Amino acid sequence: MQKVRIGSVGLGRLGLAHAENIALKIRHAELVALCDVDTAKLHQTADKLNVPHRFTLFEDMLSLPELDGVVLVSPSGLHTTQIAAALAAGKHVFSEKPLGVTVAECKATEKAVEAHPDLVFMLGFMRRFDGSYQYAQQKVAAGEIGKPVLFRSYSQDPEKFIAGAIAFAPHSGGQFLDMAVHDIDLARWFTGSEPETVYAIGGCYAHPEFAHYQDGDNVSCLMRFKNGCMVFLFAGRTAPHGYNVETEIIGTQGILRIASVPQKNLVEILDCHGVRRECSENFLERFGDAYCKEIQEFVDCIVSGQKPRVSVYDGTRVSEIAYTCKRAFETGELVRF
Amino acid sequence: MQKVRIGSVGLGRLGLAHAENIALKIRHAELVALCDVDTAKLHQTADKLNVPHRFTLFEDMLSLPELDGVVLVSPSGLHTTQIAAALAAGKHVFSEKPLGVTVAECKATEKAVEAHPDLVFMLGFMRRFDGSYQYAQQKVAAGEIGKPVLFRSYSQDPEKFIAGAIAFAPHSGGQFLDMAVHDIDLARWFTGSEPETVYAIGGCYAHPEFAHYQDGDNVSCLMRFKNGCMVFLFAGRTAPHGYNVETEIIGTQGILRIASVPQKNLVEILDCHGVRRECSENFLERFGDAYCKEIQEFVDCIVSGQKPRVSVYDGTRVSEIAYTCKRAFETGELVRF
Amino acid sequence: MQKVRIGSVGLGRLGLAHAENIALKIRHAELVALCDVDTAKLHQTADKLNVPHRFTLFEDMLSLPELDGVVLVSPSGLHTTQIAAALAAGKHVFSEKPLGVTVAECKATEKAVEAHPDLVFMLGFMRRFDGSYQYAQQKVAAGEIGKPVLFRSYSQDPEKFIAGAIAFAPHSGGQFLDMAVHDIDLARWFTGSEPETVYAIGGCYAHPEFAHYQDGDNVSCLMRFKNGCMVFLFAGRTAPHGYNVETEIIGTQGILRIASVPQKNLVEILDCHGVRRECSENFLERFGDAYCKEIQEFVDCIVSGQKPRVSVYDGTRVSEIAYTCKRAFETGELVRF
Amino acid sequence: MQKVRIGSVGLGRLGLAHAENIALKIRHAELVALCDVDTAKLHQTADKLNVPHRFTLFEDMLSLPELDGVVLVSPSGLHTTQIAAALAAGKHVFSEKPLGVTVAECKATEKAVEAHPDLVFMLGFMRRFDGSYQYAQQKVAAGEIGKPVLFRSYSQDPEKFIAGAIAFAPHSGGQFLDMAVHDIDLARWFTGSEPETVYAIGGCYAHPEFAHYQDGDNVSCLMRFKNGCMVFLFAGRTAPHGYNVETEIIGTQGILRIASVPQKNLVEILDCHGVRRECSENFLERFGDAYCKEIQEFVDCIVSGQKPRVSVYDGTRVSEIAYTCKRAFETGELVRF
Repeated sequence: MQKVRIGSVGLGRLGLAHAENIALKIRHAELVALCDVDTAKLHQTADKLNVPHRFTLFEDMLSLPELDGVVLVSPSGLHTTQIAAALAAGKHVFSEKPLGVTVAECKATEKAVEAHPDLVFMLGFMRRFDGSYQYAQQKVAAGEIGKPVLFRSYSQDPEKFIAGAIAFAPHSGGQFLDMAVHDIDLARWFTGSEPETVYAIGGCYAHPEFAHYQDGDNVSCLMRFKNGCMVFLFAGRTAPHGYNVETEIIGTQGILRIASVPQKNLVEILDCHGVRRECSENFLERFGDAYCKEIQEFVDCIVSGQKPRVSVYDGTRVSEIAYTCKRAFETGELVRF
Repeated sequence: MQKVRIGSVGLGRLGLAHAENIALKIRHAELVALCDVDTAKLHQTADKLNVPHRFTLFEDMLSLPELDGVVLVSPSGLHTTQIAAALAAGKHVFSEKPLGVTVAECKATEKAVEAHPDLVFMLGFMRRFDGSYQYAQQKVAAGEIGKPVLFRSYSQDPEKFIAGAIAFAPHSGGQFLDMAVHDIDLARWFTGSEPETVYAIGGCYAHPEFAHYQDGDNVSCLMRFKNGCMVFLFAGRTAPHGYNVETEIIGTQGILRIASVPQKNLVEILDCHGVRRECSENFLERFGDAYCKEIQEFVDCIVSGQKPRVSVYDGTRVSEIAYTCKRAFETGELVRF
Repeated sequence: MQKVRIGSVGLGRLGLAHAENIALKIRHAELVALCDVDTAKLHQTADKLNVPHRFTLFEDMLSLPELDGVVLVSPSGLHTTQIAAALAAGKHVFSEKPLGVTVAECKATEKAVEAHPDLVFMLGFMRRFDGSYQYAQQKVAAGEIGKPVLFRSYSQDPEKFIAGAIAFAPHSGGQFLDMAVHDIDLARWFTGSEPETVYAIGGCYAHPEFAHYQDGDNVSCLMRFKNGCMVFLFAGRTAPHGYNVETEIIGTQGILRIASVPQKNLVEILDCHGVRRECSENFLERFGDAYCKEIQEFVDCIVSGQKPRVSVYDGTRVSEIAYTCKRAFETGELVRF
Repeated sequence: MQKVRIGSVGLGRLGLAHAENIALKIRHAELVALCDVDTAKLHQTADKLNVPHRFTLFEDMLSLPELDGVVLVSPSGLHTTQIAAALAAGKHVFSEKPLGVTVAECKATEKAVEAHPDLVFMLGFMRRFDGSYQYAQQKVAAGEIGKPVLFRSYSQDPEKFIAGAIAFAPHSGGQFLDMAVHDIDLARWFTGSEPETVYAIGGCYAHPEFAHYQDGDNVSCLMRFKNGCMVFLFAGRTAPHGYNVETEIIGTQGILRIASVPQKNLVEILDCHGVRRECSENFLERFGDAYCKEIQEFVDCIVSGQKPRVSVYDGTRVSEIAYTCKRAFETGELVRF
């Protein structure tokens, strides 16, 4: 079988992980090109992974005829432009979240995707590829917990990465766009419904820097969904214990909790601190396997001609909701969708 | 030492438990009188516990000269009248929550209590007497988790008691008054602050009967407290697994969870259902010890002349907040305190 | 009802707890006498608990005519002599474990107990009065886990009390007699069977002092019981995390674990050490409630004329087994009962 | 880079998993041949995985010139013969456990391996490649838990696979050889020491069939290791809850438990059965990742010329110990190594 030839853009922490996965772990795929403005890192990574083509300009990469698809792990502000350009060049596209930094951009991207029905477009909501989330979602979809009553989801980054978060604050779009988008995606996926109202609060509990960007270091919102389900989301940047992504869905006949202890592995330690589990340090440790599986789905869809489970419309919808949450947070008012 | 002679009013499930505790477990106390309209149950209980005086009218009980104090486990609508009458008769008063069914009643009760500075008045927020809650609250008060960011508290009654809850619905005042008052009390106790705003939602997910009383079978609210702390409360009547009272307090430097698994005891079972803990069945199983400790504090305050930790003003304040939550729930609007 | 008037002997840590329980918590009981060679502690405790009679000689206490029963928390070497004297004086007797320090002593005590069929004699295997152990034992007895396959029980004292353990080593009789007796009692109670063989090992892993007494700081044994059940016991003095008493019983149809996490309370902490439960610090924290319930059973038996669930023969049998384990440990040979 | 061309032998459950891993997941490897006596399964699997060469005779497969190495998942009784033949034919060899069914065979295999120092030989103790076991072993090796006191390890197969276990009983060699070899390997790996004594017991608690082969459905042993560490192993075939492989290592300064809850994933369920985790169903679910990593190490060693971490001598030593445990079990006597 002919392998899918991929070029990957962006070599930050997640970009590096994607590049290594494509080069070493994804079936039916080949990493043929890398693109990054940092030429030292570009060549170091390309050498290590035996990648023949290296680019500092995205447009140059697109002109590589043998390229079948691109994986975008570039800054959020570049996503929609790069998606459009890649599609126009006839390349399949996998883009990391968020789809775009404005809803207008997202809508324009919908048109671009619609204009290329033969090309695969997929958005990186990796939690949908995590085995535990999939197992839970199937139980909910099968009606095992009855009617959804409350969906609660937390995304907490460890305090020890706060310097990076502060440096990135001007470009992050705020916590609802930067972190809660994953929880918004999960809420729609688990409940099969859409929000009607949102009330959002929070603040700078430890790091006043985020206030400059009308953001907080910890925020939350309560939403009413159209099917009546209550949705409570919490996003924080000061977790003392590690990277904590946990979700609970309370139904009328059962309750599921996913990763309520963000355990690093199956080792339990009994020492002077008590009986304890060490926690995942970051998203790569927690979702390393899911990051592989999402790219595998991208490649499999290219090979089979099927559509990925996450569509461009999911990307737009999640962005719209995240922006509405952000507006609710900034105004302090109850917002109706 | 002269024992404190107590008369207890109301022989429902909790009333019976209080009567037994006073008769058998509370130091420096003696159960000398019981009052209930159900004469069969009255005499049966009094015989079993060797209680000499039995009444069907509260006023008659108050005229018993040797009575030092009363414990009110009567219907909520009678609390404030009975408190006033007991104080006027020179008796110390312990009243179950809620203080009253209107804020005006609560305010009037404040006056009654103020008019008898020599008498002990105490309200039954038993969770403050639970060892795990006390342990956690002390850690928070000592600053061990830094600044409070999010306070989350759940009160869930088991689905199997739903018939009783439906029967009681006309008199319960709704879930914010009936159940969430405990969580509201905890929120004020743990954060040392008061609410500024509240948004409340919910509905009848399994039992439409509650809608007749503008109530839901599951409700929640998100509040912003004056110190900035986010407070999320959830109250439900359809828990599939048992009686679930759990609380989490996320601080900038640590997180505490109290009873995140509502375990019945220390037994873990490994069988065809997996690895599991059975859950507490009801409030008496979970808080049996706390119910003793609160009455012990009441008695100890009578003996020592000290004031209980929970004042009449706490009762009024919690009722005000619960009513505001109820109004937010009924109107669907964001309410500012 | 006439209260049972008790004299308590020995004011070490557990002795103090028993004295307080009898004075303050046990129904139908009165603490009328205390006995200890440390007169300062004797008077301090008696003053605090309003105990009228104080003795430094056990024989003097026995001559107190109003005394109904004695609670022995004295050094192990004195148990059998004191039991015999108390019975001869017509007093009911509760004795802490072990029954005696030799099997001959235990056998002699059986005769003394048999000679006074009207007097209550009870031995303090408090774990049988712990709610979690009782809950588990009832499930096993009801056949809920099928046929017992493996019974495993650990008793670990915290390293931080090692100085006391070393000081007590000359008198402890070794870990099988000092600690594992509780696990031996549980094994007999849960399996309803008796040992056939034992192989015992261990050593001084951290504290060579115990070798002077042919003991170890950590020991274990594997026994085959007559019903075929495998029994593995482990006793240690160097637990880094707290007081750890845990038991597992594997059956053909289910498995039960009691206190596999020796949690202090229901508080879970999430901080830089991970997600953790703090542990019980000592036997009083873990078994405080059971210590009350066993004395309550003693008192209730005196009042009702019933026999306690733990007989003198249980005490002898457990001692015989513990001595056999000790011999197996000292010789390194497989021993058959 | 030239890929390592592998032929895999045996298409039972684990054989199939290895074949799929080599074909789809292992880097620098290619599955070029399959061998099984069941021709239907042989061709079905080979077709699915695009494997060009198919054999029913192992000797025929060895004559394939392009073959670099073989993976043996054949019946235990064939291992040593096949290993010798493959080495003689100049092929690298990965063999599933056990190395052989007699110690003499194992010793002969040592000679065969020594005679081909240029060829990679590796034995499949997959637990050493599990992330949680590796994490724990590194902590132990780094001295983080002090001196090892007790090593306890359980291997339990689910009752629901009992029919297969009974059918396989004549060939399994008994539970010490069939299951406990993994725990024996772990004990040596974690403690860095070797056994001195062993006492082994057990029986047929639910399935008398195993007695025909001098085996039990549940067995255990207690060993004293040369460094003084106590080692308790338990192997069972009647686990009611799933596939349960758990290990605990108690040290003088800390305790580690690996997989004390054999959880299937990170989902916690709260329903009428309590708060629970579902369990792993079988070894492939629990150790799927480790099975990949061990074959990857085999391939990487072929490519790099390094030696695998598990040597032929480990295989012999584990077999010797397992046979000694078996003898102890059969005789009921304490056996010294």
